[in-house]
Amino acid sequence: MRMGMVGGGRGSFIGAIHRMAAAIDGQIELVCGAFSSNPENSKASGQDFFLPENRVYGSFEEMIRKEKELPEGERMDFVSIVTPNHMHFPPAKMALENGFHVVCDKPMTLNLEEAREMVKTVERTGLLFCLTHNYTGYPMVKEAREIVRSGKLGKIRKVVAEYPQGWLSTFLEGTGNKQAAWRTDPARSGAAGCMGDIGTHAENLAEYITGLKISELCADLTTFVEGRQLDDDGNVLLRFDNGAKGVLHASQIAQGEENDLNIRIYGEQGGLEWRQMEPNTLIHKSQTFRHVLRTGVGELSEAARAHFRIPPPGHPEGYLEAFGNLYRNFALTLRSRLKGETPDPLYTDFPGVHDGVRGLAFIETLIRSNNSDRKWTKFVE
Amino acid sequence: MRMGMVGGGRGSFIGAIHRMAAAIDGQIELVCGAFSSNPENSKASGQDFFLPENRVYGSFEEMIRKEKELPEGERMDFVSIVTPNHMHFPPAKMALENGFHVVCDKPMTLNLEEAREMVKTVERTGLLFCLTHNYTGYPMVKEAREIVRSGKLGKIRKVVAEYPQGWLSTFLEGTGNKQAAWRTDPARSGAAGCMGDIGTHAENLAEYITGLKISELCADLTTFVEGRQLDDDGNVLLRFDNGAKGVLHASQIAQGEENDLNIRIYGEQGGLEWRQMEPNTLIHKSQTFRHVLRTGVGELSEAARAHFRIPPPGHPEGYLEAFGNLYRNFALTLRSRLKGETPDPLYTDFPGVHDGVRGLAFIETLIRSNNSDRKWTKFVE
Amino acid sequence: MRMGMVGGGRGSFIGAIHRMAAAIDGQIELVCGAFSSNPENSKASGQDFFLPENRVYGSFEEMIRKEKELPEGERMDFVSIVTPNHMHFPPAKMALENGFHVVCDKPMTLNLEEAREMVKTVERTGLLFCLTHNYTGYPMVKEAREIVRSGKLGKIRKVVAEYPQGWLSTFLEGTGNKQAAWRTDPARSGAAGCMGDIGTHAENLAEYITGLKISELCADLTTFVEGRQLDDDGNVLLRFDNGAKGVLHASQIAQGEENDLNIRIYGEQGGLEWRQMEPNTLIHKSQTFRHVLRTGVGELSEAARAHFRIPPPGHPEGYLEAFGNLYRNFALTLRSRLKGETPDPLYTDFPGVHDGVRGLAFIETLIRSNNSDRKWTKFVE
Amino acid sequence: MRMGMVGGGRGSFIGAIHRMAAAIDGQIELVCGAFSSNPENSKASGQDFFLPENRVYGSFEEMIRKEKELPEGERMDFVSIVTPNHMHFPPAKMALENGFHVVCDKPMTLNLEEAREMVKTVERTGLLFCLTHNYTGYPMVKEAREIVRSGKLGKIRKVVAEYPQGWLSTFLEGTGNKQAAWRTDPARSGAAGCMGDIGTHAENLAEYITGLKISELCADLTTFVEGRQLDDDGNVLLRFDNGAKGVLHASQIAQGEENDLNIRIYGEQGGLEWRQMEPNTLIHKSQTFRHVLRTGVGELSEAARAHFRIPPPGHPEGYLEAFGNLYRNFALTLRSRLKGETPDPLYTDFPGVHDGVRGLAFIETLIRSNNSDRKWTKFVE
Repeated sequence: MRMGMVGGGRGSFIGAIHRMAAAIDGQIELVCGAFSSNPENSKASGQDFFLPENRVYGSFEEMIRKEKELPEGERMDFVSIVTPNHMHFPPAKMALENGFHVVCDKPMTLNLEEAREMVKTVERTGLLFCLTHNYTGYPMVKEAREIVRSGKLGKIRKVVAEYPQGWLSTFLEGTGNKQAAWRTDPARSGAAGCMGDIGTHAENLAEYITGLKISELCADLTTFVEGRQLDDDGNVLLRFDNGAKGVLHASQIAQGEENDLNIRIYGEQGGLEWRQMEPNTLIHKSQTFRHVLRTGVGELSEAARAHFRIPPPGHPEGYLEAFGNLYRNFALTLRSRLKGETPDPLYTDFPGVHDGVRGLAFIETLIRSNNSDRKWTKFVE
Repeated sequence: MRMGMVGGGRGSFIGAIHRMAAAIDGQIELVCGAFSSNPENSKASGQDFFLPENRVYGSFEEMIRKEKELPEGERMDFVSIVTPNHMHFPPAKMALENGFHVVCDKPMTLNLEEAREMVKTVERTGLLFCLTHNYTGYPMVKEAREIVRSGKLGKIRKVVAEYPQGWLSTFLEGTGNKQAAWRTDPARSGAAGCMGDIGTHAENLAEYITGLKISELCADLTTFVEGRQLDDDGNVLLRFDNGAKGVLHASQIAQGEENDLNIRIYGEQGGLEWRQMEPNTLIHKSQTFRHVLRTGVGELSEAARAHFRIPPPGHPEGYLEAFGNLYRNFALTLRSRLKGETPDPLYTDFPGVHDGVRGLAFIETLIRSNNSDRKWTKFVE
Repeated sequence: MRMGMVGGGRGSFIGAIHRMAAAIDGQIELVCGAFSSNPENSKASGQDFFLPENRVYGSFEEMIRKEKELPEGERMDFVSIVTPNHMHFPPAKMALENGFHVVCDKPMTLNLEEAREMVKTVERTGLLFCLTHNYTGYPMVKEAREIVRSGKLGKIRKVVAEYPQGWLSTFLEGTGNKQAAWRTDPARSGAAGCMGDIGTHAENLAEYITGLKISELCADLTTFVEGRQLDDDGNVLLRFDNGAKGVLHASQIAQGEENDLNIRIYGEQGGLEWRQMEPNTLIHKSQTFRHVLRTGVGELSEAARAHFRIPPPGHPEGYLEAFGNLYRNFALTLRSRLKGETPDPLYTDFPGVHDGVRGLAFIETLIRSNNSDRKWTKFVE
Repeated sequence: MRMGMVGGGRGSFIGAIHRMAAAIDGQIELVCGAFSSNPENSKASGQDFFLPENRVYGSFEEMIRKEKELPEGERMDFVSIVTPNHMHFPPAKMALENGFHVVCDKPMTLNLEEAREMVKTVERTGLLFCLTHNYTGYPMVKEAREIVRSGKLGKIRKVVAEYPQGWLSTFLEGTGNKQAAWRTDPARSGAAGCMGDIGTHAENLAEYITGLKISELCADLTTFVEGRQLDDDGNVLLRFDNGAKGVLHASQIAQGEENDLNIRIYGEQGGLEWRQMEPNTLIHKSQTFRHVLRTGVGELSEAARAHFRIPPPGHPEGYLEAFGNLYRNFALTLRSRLKGETPDPLYTDFPGVHDGVRGLAFIETLIRSNNSDRKWTKFVE
């Protein structure tokens, strides 16, 4: 599949990740891009990626217009959007309206209103949309979901989801750090800082694995670092639609934490534990056993097996491979569709607009709860 | 020192723990006991412990009365109270009022009112009182406290304290399990179940290490198992008196969890992590380093070094040794006092009535919060 | 049971360990001792342990003679020998010949000849003898042995046993360190340094768990630290009597290692892994599963369950408790014997003279192999 | 860079790994291949990789001949050889002699004689040659090497290198398993089985990190599984050229082991520990500290930093990324060379023919030692 990219030029962090994730399985070729709002940067970036000059554009509008004029079989098949949050919706909407499928970074949009509009646009155009909630791409996350679905845990009672980081323990946005700058700027990041950037991953992971929906929550968001405009820490009590309870907390000021997204799920008959930093391991335990499930060892679900590349166990796959699973699934589904075939349901499992709406609704519910002195705030999608 | 015991007869769990903890350092001798409200059990238990018949009593009242009549040098020096919660206050009060020092299991009393009365009794009699919040006896907990005190972490911003267990995932109290029965019975356990039994340990640990006080909290307590009378799970948002935020959760229905008390503390300059199930390790980390501190390795604080017995590293000490540290410290302090000497401050560090009041206040604040629809409930001691 | 101690006075490391291990289960009382070859130290030590002056002796000979004269019911039941290696045999022999049972530190004697003599003395006197190969006292070591016995692993093919320490990485014996001094002195330690002190623990553990015997070996022993008289490192290839192969290595110069005795055992159908530094965990694994066995969780063998004290899982027991298991088993077996009862076979499981002979034979086979340029040296007991 | 591939068609394991590793950094494009000795398989495989029919060849000879005729800028720049061991040398030699650079899987050749011939061919042609000893591509392996080089460990005294796997615990080669079949067949695998396949990785890793050379060794190789033609387990004592001692063992019958290559290195002042299955962690320890070094945390060497892609810590990179580092380095070095520039020394760090000769010499020394009853066999390159 031929990919055009919006954003991700020199100096971008996530753009490089997307390109590696897209490349790893040999299913996707980067054919064009509008890599930066700065045309010089865009051009230089295009050279880094060995693109011909005429496929490197100065703006996403130009890219979408010009690519549309290229003959089928040459023009890009889909757009990958890797810009800061405020620049997700405009290119996504324009791409969709011009017939291009879309892969988009998360959170899907700057606010819930845009998110609802995105849903409508995708439904209207009938095109494919993939939201890169990349952590659900890990094979042992798939395995966890299948274990919950199988009923082995019984009814879910409690969920603990954490996403601690420490990198914003100081006023990094005041030092010229580009990643810190936009993430702490409400105009580019949205209403939440930490909770939008990483809290939404924890929320998405919890709902993805359990199949439950958060029904109400109680949030305590804090901005610890002086001068910062958005929250850099958040603690949340959760209630789920089946009566389960939960705790979700995320932080960018947890000194010494790297990127320790993790989740524990307890049901009537068993529990699960998964940590992103050791992603090939899933612990399934109860009062009578403690089983360590590993990619490549023993009987895993078909869903898990379809999401790792190296069958012999003990060859660790990581973040890029999980991210790559989203691109690979998107590409295989798109290829089937273009061939007029029914896509294999194993590969249609990638996050989409509905995950996007949940994410923005989560953010806005958090903000409302944080501003309220009532204990519980309903989760409104 | 000569110890008399109240409770802890055949079938008791915690009584055996107290006896081993008291014995390990060769400072304390069990000389008498009222081991059970059932005189036959008490007698049989006394035989198990090789006690002469005349030092085994049918009730704590009898024990206190008769021991008082024995000559100094023969009669017990202190009473150790290892009964269910509702039977802490009566023997403690009577022992103190008859001139015996006291070691008492936690929570200190059945309710906050009794706890306040206990404080007064201890102050009035001037006797020693040790509350067995045993987890603060671990050397690496001492080390953590010293690191906080040293200022190495900077101002504390966030605390996450957890105490998940899974043993009450089913209606165990309906199966004749004695431990489950009294812990889930409000008359013997008090107003809280899970939160009283283990949540208070997490609260005590957090306040002990950080030196901070919880100032308000928001609790969501649940009884998941049908037929149970008390909470078996609780999730709590915390605010501390220095502005730090926190999360505390405890559970008895976290299927597959053993006894995983753990704490993470994040300050402006660094973070700490400690887990009771691997107690000889303390992780000190920041954005630029990750140091694993181990009992016996390198430069630990004097406070830590005074609380492990085996100087060469890698010889694990565990739960009984930590518990034993409380008894050892109590015995050394008592010995100094009886000799008219000033006790070494290293050994006066054991929990006391003030910890006990905090614990009961925590329980009562949780209950009030849980019954309220306001987000925050003040912590009143 | 009443214990007399030889060695273990002020400044001793292992004496304190033995006393705590003996005390923990309330089965043994220290009643007398010859704690040091220096009578002043012996006396002072006796005071530390609250012994009456007349039960503190200036030599083991005096102790054995005088205790023998005391009435039954007062005199010691057994002697615990915690001196350096060269002083194991003389007091053990004299004690046995005067009717006292013996607990003795390992290696059992200074050399193989003495070890064989010890066997004869024990057989002749018919008394109980416990050799403190303490690591076999851990419950999960018992569990490992039971798993091997059950046939779940199939025929054993490979054993890897390691015991790395780093504490003698420098010339510590030149700095006045008492522990280092005797352990590196051939006159007090025997023919081997590292391999005698800790290599024998690895050998004992491997043979204990697998039930196999080493039949031949190939050793490469080294003295890395200049000026040292004995080996401080050894690497050994093993062959077992059933055709299994093995690797055993031990070191006192493995910088950064604490006391990391560990073993891995591979059979036709499964493997086991146990590490002393995390002793409550045993990993049982195969190509299709990875099970973490934990003290207190699920269905463990009766042998394992008889060797931990705290039934609820997650309350770590450690080195002293494992050491204590030997004393407890010895005491229970002795008590049964004194009562004329058949001891419970669960508690007769403690190391004895046969383990002692294997240990000395291992040391002497290592030395012969190390001096040979032949690949294989037969293990002669 | 344009890559042609020899081997790696449908059903191949390592071919897919090489393609993903080559693709990940966007520096290499697969342009042609002779993917199988079966032309149908080769053709079908070419379609899987979206190659034009005319660039898919029936044999490596055809590929090299025909590609040579293509114009520069279109023809492949280098050949990647991913066949079983016996088919490494012929295509590599022919490629080199026709002016194509070479990437080749390990062990480099079927035997030492071919390996020496390969060295001469590379020297004669002056072309680039990369041997995919992929485990040296991990960033924390680079860091370990830099720590040794820095002198922080002092003189190296002991090395323990392990590579246990369990996948050949049964007679898998008798079940039609293609991977097992060629690896256990002397005609395709060479003189050693387990030790050639994975033992050489351990040897290469040990020499790479320490900078030392094995000078003599003592091997005990075993074939445990009945009917198997080559060793499936090996235990080896090592001596290094600086006087250091070592242990190396590898196994394919270690039931339950996945792919647990690991190494521990002890010097006079400190020790290092690295495990392939948790590759982003390196432990640096001594008697006074225990530091956990992590990719992305704190001050790592330039060499380490140049070999991971995701600067924020906690985003695990794995096996493919480490493998990809070899391809990336090879591609960057080749690109510099084609431009006439001096390559950045950070990227010229990939294994080459000298590593290949060491590997084959290791295998042949092992075989000689195993057949000898002398303890030590000299390592002859």
